[in-house]
Amino acid sequence: MIIRQGFAELRGCGAAISDEAALRDAAVAAARSAGATVIGDHAQRYAEHGLTLVIFLAQSHVMLSTWPEYDLILADVLLCDDTMSVDGAIDALAARLCPDGTVVRSSVERRIGPAETRA
Amino acid sequence: MIIRQGFAELRGCGAAISDEAALRDAAVAAARSAGATVIGDHAQRYAEHGLTLVIFLAQSHVMLSTWPEYDLILADVLLCDDTMSVDGAIDALAARLCPDGTVVRSSVERRIGPAETRA
Repeated sequence: MIIRQGFAELRGCGAAISDEAALRDAAVAAARSAGATVIGDHAQRYAEHGLTLVIFLAQSHVMLSTWPEYDLILADVLLCDDTMSVDGAIDALAARLCPDGTVVRSSVERRIGPAETRA
Repeated sequence: MIIRQGFAELRGCGAAISDEAALRDAAVAAARSAGATVIGDHAQRYAEHGLTLVIFLAQSHVMLSTWPEYDLILADVLLCDDTMSVDGAIDALAARLCPDGTVVRSSVERRIGPAETRA
């Protein structure tokens, strides 16, 4: 199974960048909008400002990392189910966190399965 | 600052794939070998088998996700310091976890900094 891991740079998100509850709610909502099942989360806060938040899914993860000093949220979404839309999940994140901001996307392919199924 | 986030598929790692302490030790050693500072970690265990382990760094993260049923460990390394070597960190992971296995690498560029520095 070849899966695209999706990434986004979100800028211009306003106060959400420093609102841990809003970040968590957006990540959970994005995962659920793709059909994924949330099984845990963990936030690592940085000493000055910023945090990394991981939402663990039955299908892998949504990670948000914030750099308030750069007005930047990085998103990282891996959904290990090829019927789920990573682009849709990033759309949902952006709609909640940055409705008036900008989103720049990228992705990488990851291969998940036994060795003999690799393309 | 443009940073390459590095990924690897590791196969043929033997017993390490199911040894959480060995996975954590390898991820911490890999981060430190690159010069990064470990500030926390979190493991999410899956119901049947497999886990996702995140080592949080002052410079971002090392993540390992295991699929024992596929003999597969996925590594994900982001080092937000362009003097640190993501390839060296993956080399260190592979040397500890899969000295007799195979490693397939990929990467994606991420841009970290204020909007005006984007290339």
